Amino acid sequence: MAVYTEVSDEDLNAFIAQYPLGGVLSCKGIAEGVENSNYLLVTETGPYILTLYEKRVNRADLPFFLGLMEHLSAKGVGCPVPLHGHDGEALRELCGRPAVLVTFLNGMWPRRIAPYHCQALGEAMAGLHLAGADFTMARPNNLSVSGWRPLFEACADRAHEVKPGLAEALESELDLLEAHWPSATGPGALPSGVIHADLFPDNVFFRGRALSGLIDFYFACTDLLAYDVAICLNAWCFEPDGAFNATKARLLLSSYRKVRPLSDSELEALPLLARGGSLRFLLTRLYDLLNHPPGAFVQPKNPLEYWNKLRFHQQVRGPGDYGLE
Amino acid sequence: MAVYTEVSDEDLNAFIAQYPLGGVLSCKGIAEGVENSNYLLVTETGPYILTLYEKRVNRADLPFFLGLMEHLSAKGVGCPVPLHGHDGEALRELCGRPAVLVTFLNGMWPRRIAPYHCQALGEAMAGLHLAGADFTMARPNNLSVSGWRPLFEACADRAHEVKPGLAEALESELDLLEAHWPSATGPGALPSGVIHADLFPDNVFFRGRALSGLIDFYFACTDLLAYDVAICLNAWCFEPDGAFNATKARLLLSSYRKVRPLSDSELEALPLLARGGSLRFLLTRLYDLLNHPPGAFVQPKNPLEYWNKLRFHQQVRGPGDYGLE
Repeated sequence: MAVYTEVSDEDLNAFIAQYPLGGVLSCKGIAEGVENSNYLLVTETGPYILTLYEKRVNRADLPFFLGLMEHLSAKGVGCPVPLHGHDGEALRELCGRPAVLVTFLNGMWPRRIAPYHCQALGEAMAGLHLAGADFTMARPNNLSVSGWRPLFEACADRAHEVKPGLAEALESELDLLEAHWPSATGPGALPSGVIHADLFPDNVFFRGRALSGLIDFYFACTDLLAYDVAICLNAWCFEPDGAFNATKARLLLSSYRKVRPLSDSELEALPLLARGGSLRFLLTRLYDLLNHPPGAFVQPKNPLEYWNKLRFHQQVRGPGDYGLE
Repeated sequence: MAVYTEVSDEDLNAFIAQYPLGGVLSCKGIAEGVENSNYLLVTETGPYILTLYEKRVNRADLPFFLGLMEHLSAKGVGCPVPLHGHDGEALRELCGRPAVLVTFLNGMWPRRIAPYHCQALGEAMAGLHLAGADFTMARPNNLSVSGWRPLFEACADRAHEVKPGLAEALESELDLLEAHWPSATGPGALPSGVIHADLFPDNVFFRGRALSGLIDFYFACTDLLAYDVAICLNAWCFEPDGAFNATKARLLLSSYRKVRPLSDSELEALPLLARGGSLRFLLTRLYDLLNHPPGAFVQPKNPLEYWNKLRFHQQVRGPGDYGLE
């Protein structure tokens, strides 16, 4: 939950005058999203989302993110679409920060995950992967396998504060993952393309039982498609008590496969990809926890939730343990 | 900025089904307000504000607050109005908390105060005081003079952490205010009635240069009308550098007097009331700062801002120093 930048009414009115949207009726900071400042802006033509990009987002990446949303939306994927001003530009400045106005997506993200949510998610994620196939821009995933060791090294000295022996366990996992991580090119490569890379429940909106769209493309990148699936297994198929729900996983995977078939190599790689996905979120949460400024708005998330997920995937014998026949 | 309670989509849909407002399209926590959880809820019939009352609000006070908003609105004061469900009730429960749905008020609160804001505020505040005259409910102000000593005593031991000598200075001010505070009854009493008691800029909305309404009536109470004026002198007429802006004060007071004349006794009491208003916000901010849990969402406000205001009013010779002829 975060609003980092305070936008004055004068600055906002001048900003909105650059769009054909009528006058501002209301603008309220939204207590969601941790990377950027988001406002629900209502003008005479309806509601919109105004995003100001804070320091953690690299300006050079913004054309990829904005272009991707436009591309996906044009292909029928439900997602916010950047609006263009009278000058044709979508990306401009507000309060010294890059700022974008996007369309408002109806729906709410599910607080309690039911099996039908996982079913709808699988289908939507596969649709996203297909729709991204002819997107011409690329962005490397700096939070994939090559990014984990620097993160680990920044945390290793203090990891024992969170759990005794954690550093040693993470290092041996990291050694294994670096040695066996599937390639995206060459012989035996797994299919790669545009992935969302952060499809957690708070980025997936539903109206009733129907998925209405996906938001927050600010981790999207070019990577193994099956890695996106593995991230979702972690984010959607564990119960609050830590138990893996094979019914949810089976629905997620089978609905995905109806839209985009998973190859045998992708299925076989799933347990390893899920271990990598666990390590990735464990490391970023560990880093945030150890470097959390006291009194900051954002409560750090618990890295050990992902320790438990990692331990589960380490014991998986094959993709059948994810509920597949 | 605060959303303390997480509302699930299931709970929200069941809640909204009790109102004739159509289905839920969206519900987002708002990063404004520090006492309650507020959501901008969009249904098929438009936008509304959903408020969940957290611990700091006394449930027994809610009928006063809700009744007041209805009363004021019926008298033409721009403010949110509680909505009644199919069962006629406005106050119900959601997630174990008292919850109310109110109408959405267009406008934005001014981040940079211009003289015209103060002029519009004076007129609106006087209108509020007149409109409240025949409101039949009453609520004592537990943050007026009788409430300050307990607050002071809860902070006195640690006040020097914020400023050396602060406790002694506050105690002598408190002695003086207790001895000379104007009465609301008996001979020489000042006019009393419904006051807002927290008319800070973030509770006053504007569309362009026009005031569109007042929000957040959760400190409203029955008290001296001129005390509300004094609170606004403090909240609106000092510049960010601490300087008092007599032009803003003159506009605030003169526009107020055009709608509701201030008696000579009220004018003479203004400096003392403004000292009391300074002490009240100084003490609550001091208390919040000293009792601020580390890592909490809400950044405590600086109590010393009100120390400077108090010092200014201590040196005022009479109401003429507030820009009046």
